[in-house]
Amino acid sequence: MAVDKPAFQVAAEVLAQVARDERVDLDELKARVDAGTVVVMGDGTVQPLGIGKGLRVKVNANLGTSPDYPDVEEELKKLRAAVAVGADTVMDLSTGGDIDAIRRRIRQECPVLLGIVPVYQAIIEAEERYGDTMKMPGELLLDVIERQAQDGVDFMTIHCGVTRQTVAALRSSPRLGGIVSRGGSMLAAWITQNNAENPLYERYDDLLAILKEHNVAISLGDGLRPGATADATDAGQVSETRVLGELVLRARAAGVQAFVEGPGHVPLDQIEANVVIQKRLCHDAPFYVLGPLVTDVAPGYDHITGAIGGAICAAAGADYLCYVTPAEHLGLPSVPDVIEGTIASRIAAHAADMVKGVPGAREWDDKMSRARRELDWEAMEHLAMDPGRVRLTRGDRPTADDKACSMCGRFCSVRANRLVDGEPTEDNA
Amino acid sequence: MAVDKPAFQVAAEVLAQVARDERVDLDELKARVDAGTVVVMGDGTVQPLGIGKGLRVKVNANLGTSPDYPDVEEELKKLRAAVAVGADTVMDLSTGGDIDAIRRRIRQECPVLLGIVPVYQAIIEAEERYGDTMKMPGELLLDVIERQAQDGVDFMTIHCGVTRQTVAALRSSPRLGGIVSRGGSMLAAWITQNNAENPLYERYDDLLAILKEHNVAISLGDGLRPGATADATDAGQVSETRVLGELVLRARAAGVQAFVEGPGHVPLDQIEANVVIQKRLCHDAPFYVLGPLVTDVAPGYDHITGAIGGAICAAAGADYLCYVTPAEHLGLPSVPDVIEGTIASRIAAHAADMVKGVPGAREWDDKMSRARRELDWEAMEHLAMDPGRVRLTRGDRPTADDKACSMCGRFCSVRANRLVDGEPTEDNA
Repeated sequence: MAVDKPAFQVAAEVLAQVARDERVDLDELKARVDAGTVVVMGDGTVQPLGIGKGLRVKVNANLGTSPDYPDVEEELKKLRAAVAVGADTVMDLSTGGDIDAIRRRIRQECPVLLGIVPVYQAIIEAEERYGDTMKMPGELLLDVIERQAQDGVDFMTIHCGVTRQTVAALRSSPRLGGIVSRGGSMLAAWITQNNAENPLYERYDDLLAILKEHNVAISLGDGLRPGATADATDAGQVSETRVLGELVLRARAAGVQAFVEGPGHVPLDQIEANVVIQKRLCHDAPFYVLGPLVTDVAPGYDHITGAIGGAICAAAGADYLCYVTPAEHLGLPSVPDVIEGTIASRIAAHAADMVKGVPGAREWDDKMSRARRELDWEAMEHLAMDPGRVRLTRGDRPTADDKACSMCGRFCSVRANRLVDGEPTEDNA
Repeated sequence: MAVDKPAFQVAAEVLAQVARDERVDLDELKARVDAGTVVVMGDGTVQPLGIGKGLRVKVNANLGTSPDYPDVEEELKKLRAAVAVGADTVMDLSTGGDIDAIRRRIRQECPVLLGIVPVYQAIIEAEERYGDTMKMPGELLLDVIERQAQDGVDFMTIHCGVTRQTVAALRSSPRLGGIVSRGGSMLAAWITQNNAENPLYERYDDLLAILKEHNVAISLGDGLRPGATADATDAGQVSETRVLGELVLRARAAGVQAFVEGPGHVPLDQIEANVVIQKRLCHDAPFYVLGPLVTDVAPGYDHITGAIGGAICAAAGADYLCYVTPAEHLGLPSVPDVIEGTIASRIAAHAADMVKGVPGAREWDDKMSRARRELDWEAMEHLAMDPGRVRLTRGDRPTADDKACSMCGRFCSVRANRLVDGEPTEDNA
């Protein structure tokens, strides 16, 4: 592996904890971190986590205020809800209210890794100072990133791959949905309006120096990701992925851990190809995907649409799923939306873990199947991904026979099985 | 194609309507029906429907009373809800109350194809008459099927493939979850306890004669389907599929349209193989799957688990998805569960239609993407799979700027796109 680059800042005890949590060999994990195929984040203050090759697929929950809904208390409720149902990481995407203060509150309360998207704050500050986001000086972007890094976050999504060249590639193959990433669209507009290069690309070395100093990992944002299934895997998207691959190598060389973001909206039959392309072009950097959504027509249910794409993508090699909530494409998610979204992504991640041979994944399912066979409702609740939901549903539909459920009652297949096997039933025991 | 077998009873105008609805060539459709790779059901009283090769993937919603919840009015609410959100067919699986009367009420009100599972009623009648379902005379099964057929239903799930031989195969490779089909488990128990062959297999020709007379299609039930991911694609399941293939040919020869049911619980990496095996062993009969669920650990969210499996299965060639509701494994579904389950399966079906090149599928998504690009909220609502849900979510989260949404407000990527493209925005128009 690389020998003459600065080492990533991962403490030995953090690495050891991740190896234990994941039930993987410590030396192998260390080699993967060194090679950049696994990213390990987290120090003493938050739960350390590894993301990448051979590890459990992780789930991120986005939260954050919007101009219409700037109340931090509501976002803290979402934070607690997401963590309670098993989100591995959280991203604060706040764009409303005092976003410095909001981020600090969230950081204080957040027991898991926290990521942010710095460009939002830069856009807002540019609007405040210059009355027009298009007048943002390039310097402001790096200033904001430095201030945020000083505050302490674990990773940042930075859209360095939206460049003059990739925007030109995008134009070469016109899109139905255009650019749907907020950061990506603002930067592409800035590049076009100012006829200048993206400062995050032009000053990438300075950016890496800031991240290195504050031990922040970089999530290379896919500003040109498709936002319509019709646009998936097009010239704009693939050009950006190519650039992100180059930036992965530069980040590794600078001692900054890097992973790469991906789509978005992708039809079922292109998902696997997207993973192959990303892994190849980005030198096996961990792959962090949003969805992908396998159809555009189900707003209100995009957590399901995203779970379908996420499961296939993770089974094909994606390492980290950003949740999609039922509110996607419609508005800011509510607390129940955050719960639904987190669980939907966890289902996708776990379904993939099972077939990827992730240690412990298969055993969980087998324990549940055994509990079902034994009609052990207590164990079923305990083993469920969301025990609260099981309790609620069972409580809503009481049954005269508390060993069975209200669907089959006495016509229970589990009991009939005992007759097949010649085992005693309750009736003839 | 077969020339000396009795023709299937499909009226020319029904065939023509299905060809129009599906935008497929009439002669090609007719050839597929003759070959048995497409089943067309429905007469003057219900919406005719084709299921199989080259057609849109269909979605079934199960409903029906249970011993604990015998109220038909509640089931009629579920029927209306399922049809309102686009269920293509409905199955009445009632096991509580006066199930003859319930079936007739549902039949009266049901505007789509109706299927049933006759063995439930036979079990209940056996229990009433003989005090023990295991004392059911084989004759009763055929009597019940004849009475139900006279009443008029479009198709019946009949578990003819649970035989002495397939139950023995099941025993040869022990299972974690046993038999989870209610009909399958009761028949396997009956076979074992009575040391006799399944009357539905032994008297299959008599059964086909009844179905032929009343123009009822047969859905060859998979009584030995896996109910735990650990049991997927095992000896019991594959042996039964092999027998079902034999029964498909005999049904076709008798002029009875046939399709075949499939799992169940299947890990992601075995789904495609399941489709290949079923299509090959069952002579390309339409494939009707329940889920499949890709993990066992998410009770309360099995509509999502099932949508993941259903999408992959349908893309690989399955033709017909039986929904799974959030209440699966926990209790009888509520009306909201029926809605969630139906939409989840429709998402899976449509995601597959898109990549199978089903006429009109891709266009729907593209219309939605265009509406998004134009921030045309009225069109987005109209095009959504569930417009009511879109209205509700938007209504819950009003925004100061009714052209945008409460997630991004003025930081809307769609608007930034106009700057990239040099188009007028509202601000500078």
